[in-house]
Amino acid sequence: MKENFKKYLVEFIGTFFLMFTVGSVVLLGANGVIGAIAIGFALMIMVYAGGYVSGGHYNPAVSLAAAVSGALDKKQLLQYWVAQALGASAAALLVCFLSPEIIESSCPFSLPQIVIGEFLFTFALCYVVLQTAVAEKTAGNCYYGLAIGSTVMVGAVAVGGILCFGAFNPAVALGLGILNVACWVAMGITVATNLIAAVIAALTYKFINK
Amino acid sequence: MKENFKKYLVEFIGTFFLMFTVGSVVLLGANGVIGAIAIGFALMIMVYAGGYVSGGHYNPAVSLAAAVSGALDKKQLLQYWVAQALGASAAALLVCFLSPEIIESSCPFSLPQIVIGEFLFTFALCYVVLQTAVAEKTAGNCYYGLAIGSTVMVGAVAVGGILCFGAFNPAVALGLGILNVACWVAMGITVATNLIAAVIAALTYKFINK
Amino acid sequence: MKENFKKYLVEFIGTFFLMFTVGSVVLLGANGVIGAIAIGFALMIMVYAGGYVSGGHYNPAVSLAAAVSGALDKKQLLQYWVAQALGASAAALLVCFLSPEIIESSCPFSLPQIVIGEFLFTFALCYVVLQTAVAEKTAGNCYYGLAIGSTVMVGAVAVGGILCFGAFNPAVALGLGILNVACWVAMGITVATNLIAAVIAALTYKFINK
Amino acid sequence: MKENFKKYLVEFIGTFFLMFTVGSVVLLGANGVIGAIAIGFALMIMVYAGGYVSGGHYNPAVSLAAAVSGALDKKQLLQYWVAQALGASAAALLVCFLSPEIIESSCPFSLPQIVIGEFLFTFALCYVVLQTAVAEKTAGNCYYGLAIGSTVMVGAVAVGGILCFGAFNPAVALGLGILNVACWVAMGITVATNLIAAVIAALTYKFINK
Repeated sequence: MKENFKKYLVEFIGTFFLMFTVGSVVLLGANGVIGAIAIGFALMIMVYAGGYVSGGHYNPAVSLAAAVSGALDKKQLLQYWVAQALGASAAALLVCFLSPEIIESSCPFSLPQIVIGEFLFTFALCYVVLQTAVAEKTAGNCYYGLAIGSTVMVGAVAVGGILCFGAFNPAVALGLGILNVACWVAMGITVATNLIAAVIAALTYKFINK
Repeated sequence: MKENFKKYLVEFIGTFFLMFTVGSVVLLGANGVIGAIAIGFALMIMVYAGGYVSGGHYNPAVSLAAAVSGALDKKQLLQYWVAQALGASAAALLVCFLSPEIIESSCPFSLPQIVIGEFLFTFALCYVVLQTAVAEKTAGNCYYGLAIGSTVMVGAVAVGGILCFGAFNPAVALGLGILNVACWVAMGITVATNLIAAVIAALTYKFINK
Repeated sequence: MKENFKKYLVEFIGTFFLMFTVGSVVLLGANGVIGAIAIGFALMIMVYAGGYVSGGHYNPAVSLAAAVSGALDKKQLLQYWVAQALGASAAALLVCFLSPEIIESSCPFSLPQIVIGEFLFTFALCYVVLQTAVAEKTAGNCYYGLAIGSTVMVGAVAVGGILCFGAFNPAVALGLGILNVACWVAMGITVATNLIAAVIAALTYKFINK
Repeated sequence: MKENFKKYLVEFIGTFFLMFTVGSVVLLGANGVIGAIAIGFALMIMVYAGGYVSGGHYNPAVSLAAAVSGALDKKQLLQYWVAQALGASAAALLVCFLSPEIIESSCPFSLPQIVIGEFLFTFALCYVVLQTAVAEKTAGNCYYGLAIGSTVMVGAVAVGGILCFGAFNPAVALGLGILNVACWVAMGITVATNLIAAVIAALTYKFINK
């Protein structure tokens, strides 16, 4: 029980700092030019810090991919999701509290663009997580955190703000919803796309490694 | 057979994401300032994710260098090239589909500049791949992906857009051709230069390690 | 005795270069866009260079967290603090000597913003240090320096200059005071917040790892 | 004999690419914002690629520090210097050939600023090289290239172009002289400062590790 709580605590902390960094780049005026690097590296540091405790997911889509591929006990998936949602929500509320301005949510969005952008890099993220942090053949490596964090950085540059919100993560999508960055319909589409991409990445991983 | 197909799938996925990131930086308006970092790190994440399956080339020139140096079975070279060309083409077509604008191909170019720029950093890329991911004396290291991806980043900054297109990769050159970034003559020169540089890098590697 | 002096020398050198880089970004006009990366990586290189000698703290808050978690002999804490304070002071004085302009200290500041910004990322920094460089289960890894340095980079982007001074380090706060970046009251609040965050991070670490 | 020639070839290649990247950032108009990252990472990739062959110095000051600390056979120092000078000169001449403009050498410079800037980061560079790539206690790590390359990146941001030319390397100083970035007197001071800093770093290393 206490061992499990440690995992949820680590997931809470990691998702909190990931979402806080995203929120700062979006709302608090953090340096936009290297914002994508900061977001990716926020994930990296938390993966390295908490990976040995909880797996270092900080992302419900990654937890789903881990569950489908057998790396996470399916009975813990819901608890992971709750811890991640709480971490992202807490960070988003703190950013709202600190932000000098209020964002008006806007709803026009391009459905195919959101789906393509979020699908591509959530797939890439789950694929990289499974191939570098779960696959037996890469066990014990020390680059998994760099690879995982950098995937979010690359996605944030390549499609974030261009095609989609660049969440690649339902918990971050929830946080962006709280920040009013976009309407809840767009956020729901983002979450659904993230989860579908996670399953497909897990199946790809299983095909490659079985 | 199935084992080989896994390799081609991994090469397809990796080249797709590399080319998609290049295309986004060139056509979708991705953050230009750190575009070179995003492109280099896109390669890095895919090298780390797929290296243990296919070698993580994502580049016909690197596959040629691997074949010349004995790291890749020569009988698989053509299949690797096809998988890489398909991945880059799919990514380029997707970027075209997503791009709001159509680029008019322009043909004036400086032959010596393209040849020098593409030669230098394709040589550097193949040299770094062979020295960090193939050489026996560095076997088991965990920095090869960082070194390989960063080589493309350095080249993209140092000569990409200045002397040449900064492909360092015939598959990416093909993708840039599909994107109409330059005319097919310039692209053909790029491909030829990439392949020549790969052979010279492989010979240099063999001299150093034999 | 001589062994201990080596540790203090290494702490002096590392804190000196960390503070010099901070001072250069603030006062000497170093490239602001990647200033946060330079500061984070200044810490990283010194952690990798000196970690095996002194632990590579370069930060009184990290030394406090190490002492609370049992990684540093409590009898050495004061000496570490003195070495770090001397290193940061020497760097700040050198930056002052080199700087073409004199900064007028200004005192209006937002207490909750300083406390929140400094607390969050000093907690993150000490948490990452303890989880990656002290925890038994990650012993022998080679990513600790990258993770630790990047934490300061992420914090510098996310809250440095937005909510707070982005010190996350009482020695750097002292250096910023010498540079007149802010008044001594604000610096005192920064130092106190850093030390409290360090203790809470150490307790979190102990909970997770016991 | 042939084994030694391999070392000189590797030193030539590495110094060539380091200097070419520096020259591109200075003269060919490479992206200035991340120019410092490109230069640092150019060194990193070459350290990882050639470290196991020649030590991966690419810098006469580093070779001197290695000789003083016993990591390089003193009889090879001159040959290393020649290979490095040839690599940097070839790169500088190629950049001159490619550059659309001719730089007029200017001679006013601040002696104390050049000495302080070059001293600080040549010391840091040699210290990081010796502590991460030569010290017995860090043998077999995989972060040495990242740490060494990043040191040049940090120095390029912190003092390069502000206090000094940011060479931290007599071969690069020679190349910058060929590029007419500054007059030969300033370059001579840079070289002398680099070599003095290397000796002091080597003595510091010996004190810490003996």
